[in-house]
Amino acid sequence: MEDVDLLLHPGWVVPMEPAGAVFEDHSVAVRDGALVALLPRPEAERHYRPARVRELPGQALMPGLVNAHTHAAMALLRGYADDLPLMTWLTEHIWPAEQAHVSEAFVRDGTELAVVEMLRGGVTCFNDMYYFPETVAEVASHAGMRVTVGMIVLDFPTVYADGPDGYLERGRALHADWRDHPLVDTVLAPHAPYTVGEASLERVRILADDLDRRVHIHLHETAGEVADSVREHGDRPLARLDALGLLGPRLLAVHMTQLTGDERARLAESGAHVVHCPEANLKLASGLCPVTDLLARGVNVALGTDGAASNNDLNLFGELRSAALVAKAESGDAGALPAWQALHLATLGGARALGRDHEIGSLLPGKAADMIAVDLSGPEAQPLHNVVSQLAYATGRSQVTDVWIAGRPVLADRLPQTLDMPALLERVRRWRDTISA
Amino acid sequence: MEDVDLLLHPGWVVPMEPAGAVFEDHSVAVRDGALVALLPRPEAERHYRPARVRELPGQALMPGLVNAHTHAAMALLRGYADDLPLMTWLTEHIWPAEQAHVSEAFVRDGTELAVVEMLRGGVTCFNDMYYFPETVAEVASHAGMRVTVGMIVLDFPTVYADGPDGYLERGRALHADWRDHPLVDTVLAPHAPYTVGEASLERVRILADDLDRRVHIHLHETAGEVADSVREHGDRPLARLDALGLLGPRLLAVHMTQLTGDERARLAESGAHVVHCPEANLKLASGLCPVTDLLARGVNVALGTDGAASNNDLNLFGELRSAALVAKAESGDAGALPAWQALHLATLGGARALGRDHEIGSLLPGKAADMIAVDLSGPEAQPLHNVVSQLAYATGRSQVTDVWIAGRPVLADRLPQTLDMPALLERVRRWRDTISA
Repeated sequence: MEDVDLLLHPGWVVPMEPAGAVFEDHSVAVRDGALVALLPRPEAERHYRPARVRELPGQALMPGLVNAHTHAAMALLRGYADDLPLMTWLTEHIWPAEQAHVSEAFVRDGTELAVVEMLRGGVTCFNDMYYFPETVAEVASHAGMRVTVGMIVLDFPTVYADGPDGYLERGRALHADWRDHPLVDTVLAPHAPYTVGEASLERVRILADDLDRRVHIHLHETAGEVADSVREHGDRPLARLDALGLLGPRLLAVHMTQLTGDERARLAESGAHVVHCPEANLKLASGLCPVTDLLARGVNVALGTDGAASNNDLNLFGELRSAALVAKAESGDAGALPAWQALHLATLGGARALGRDHEIGSLLPGKAADMIAVDLSGPEAQPLHNVVSQLAYATGRSQVTDVWIAGRPVLADRLPQTLDMPALLERVRRWRDTISA
Repeated sequence: MEDVDLLLHPGWVVPMEPAGAVFEDHSVAVRDGALVALLPRPEAERHYRPARVRELPGQALMPGLVNAHTHAAMALLRGYADDLPLMTWLTEHIWPAEQAHVSEAFVRDGTELAVVEMLRGGVTCFNDMYYFPETVAEVASHAGMRVTVGMIVLDFPTVYADGPDGYLERGRALHADWRDHPLVDTVLAPHAPYTVGEASLERVRILADDLDRRVHIHLHETAGEVADSVREHGDRPLARLDALGLLGPRLLAVHMTQLTGDERARLAESGAHVVHCPEANLKLASGLCPVTDLLARGVNVALGTDGAASNNDLNLFGELRSAALVAKAESGDAGALPAWQALHLATLGGARALGRDHEIGSLLPGKAADMIAVDLSGPEAQPLHNVVSQLAYATGRSQVTDVWIAGRPVLADRLPQTLDMPALLERVRRWRDTISA
């Protein structure tokens, strides 16, 4: 008999590797925060002596979801402005509200709210772009949540930094402070080609090379962005990034709703990753990312919710379902982005985009024990003809009951285990009064 | 002091009339199954002596949702076949499964499952098209749920009837048996112009006139349906219905993804109602209904989930959110189908389509007390800058805690009050085994 910390007995295991596989009456063993084995329950009970056992009848165990594009703290602006096009929404509502309210305290409380929401929705890792990323790293790591924080860069001053020098300096410090934390990773995060000029983007590339980091950027979100770039710079944003040496396997290009055939081929050739945010693109009428074609060309695609101010939630189960539905309409093919592949984008696709697929994204032995239990016992999940279909097409995030990150229980029976939720909600209520005033 | 049966004190009331209105700290009084008043809480407490009082702090009270297009019993085929185009999905999977399994017992258990799912998602009225509508009426009325059942008509024989004569005869009997039930209404329900020929459609029109009933039909669901009609009949389906005298204020035209400008104008002029099923249309890659344009032309639009075999749920909160998101992409306007209007489609729009807006669809005094309580106290609903935005864009159906229909509590703390859910789930498990075998 071999000692393990935890032995889980779920109704089904959906490990995401091999693709589409479902194991019934199997068990998962965890030791030192890592997955040790996935095997039939009788064998598991013969082979392992667990310190703790958890029965999960009627539940599916799967890898935690990866939210590959967030502005977590913007959860405090959920529902603040809706039903407006991107530039009106940004320049007349969101940016003024941010200018009035964003501070280290705003980011602390907003990120904690987002972390609670994401954990309760089965998200175990998020890739964040916002001000005060040091605070985001603190809040997430304190909650036991995995995060990739962005060294944000903008050309204009904000409460966080007074210009490119300041952003890059704070970014270097962020990386230095967190580089050895087991849950926290860093990327460069220049906001977009229309807010970060070529001189700054060049410095971003140099720093990314220097620190061996990825680059997370909004790109080709709207037709207007592309047209402005052509008018002002004589070229499309993707071509400009390519000329600057930024188009390569380190690039996480978010949105990508406007892509010519040549650009899709160049993306595939470059090894860049695309982060698809279907609901934000729909809500802001930005266009649709041609995900099916990109996948067929071999591009790795991840999924993101974007910030709750635009979307208006951080619900990756909803987002993966929307991705699967919208891909069929966008491609005109009802077979496009089938159920297993939508789940893949939300797990392994995200892990690969973040360069973390050696540690997360599937329940393979040796990877971190980032796992979620999804209750399939309620009437909404019956009859259970197909577990993968059910998870992709008919699962609400409220069915996530338990979440473990690196083997640590961070959500149990839908209650956060590492955060004081009532105290948080009281602070959020005060933010509502302040922001609404 | 005036006696009432029930006095509710929710955090907010969203009555849907006037459009977009939200009342804070108001109370709702109910007597004999009907709404008596909506007024400030202090006034309510001075004026009414209630037999029962219900505190609903942190909850929004709104009209029950109307699911204007379902095949409820198909809940038993949820996840049975996915990721296929409409005709392959129908002819190679769904119709053979129906031929093998559909019976009065299938419809009884499938409808009961659908009723439980819908009540738990805030749906208080549904418009159903399926075999054995007598059984649908029985199950729904026994559960205390409001329903409009379809007198289904097909040209081919099924287990339910052997041809047009048989369907129409059973339809007449259905109407005669249920015409005086307070919760049950009837409509003619010819399946589609490609399964019901012109001779039968003519008989449907005559019966509809005779009984003063509406006509519920799948129409212009796919480009293929329209092309086939032109090839086989020399005209588009809508024009054929128009020639038959079926295009008028009694028509409930479901799907409508393929519409020329002239057809949109004719629809508006005719007073016909459109039932929009955005998620089924996305999933089957059928196309998108031009809802924004139809609304601008004055067409009344309702929302439907379609059957759970296609969609794969009966989640009208999800459907109204999808409708709002997709309308923005379809019209290229981020201001299209704003939050309040998405809620309108799912309540008053549905009530009007079914000709039941004198009794349901909004919380006006005199209407039936069909109401739902939606919990907005959780972290997913914070900060609450805008109740209407929150209900449309960030509410999961699991936040529906309580449902009343004609003043009777049918769901309390998410538990059905009029059905034996454990016994039902046991029967559904047996159906899974039978169907999968």
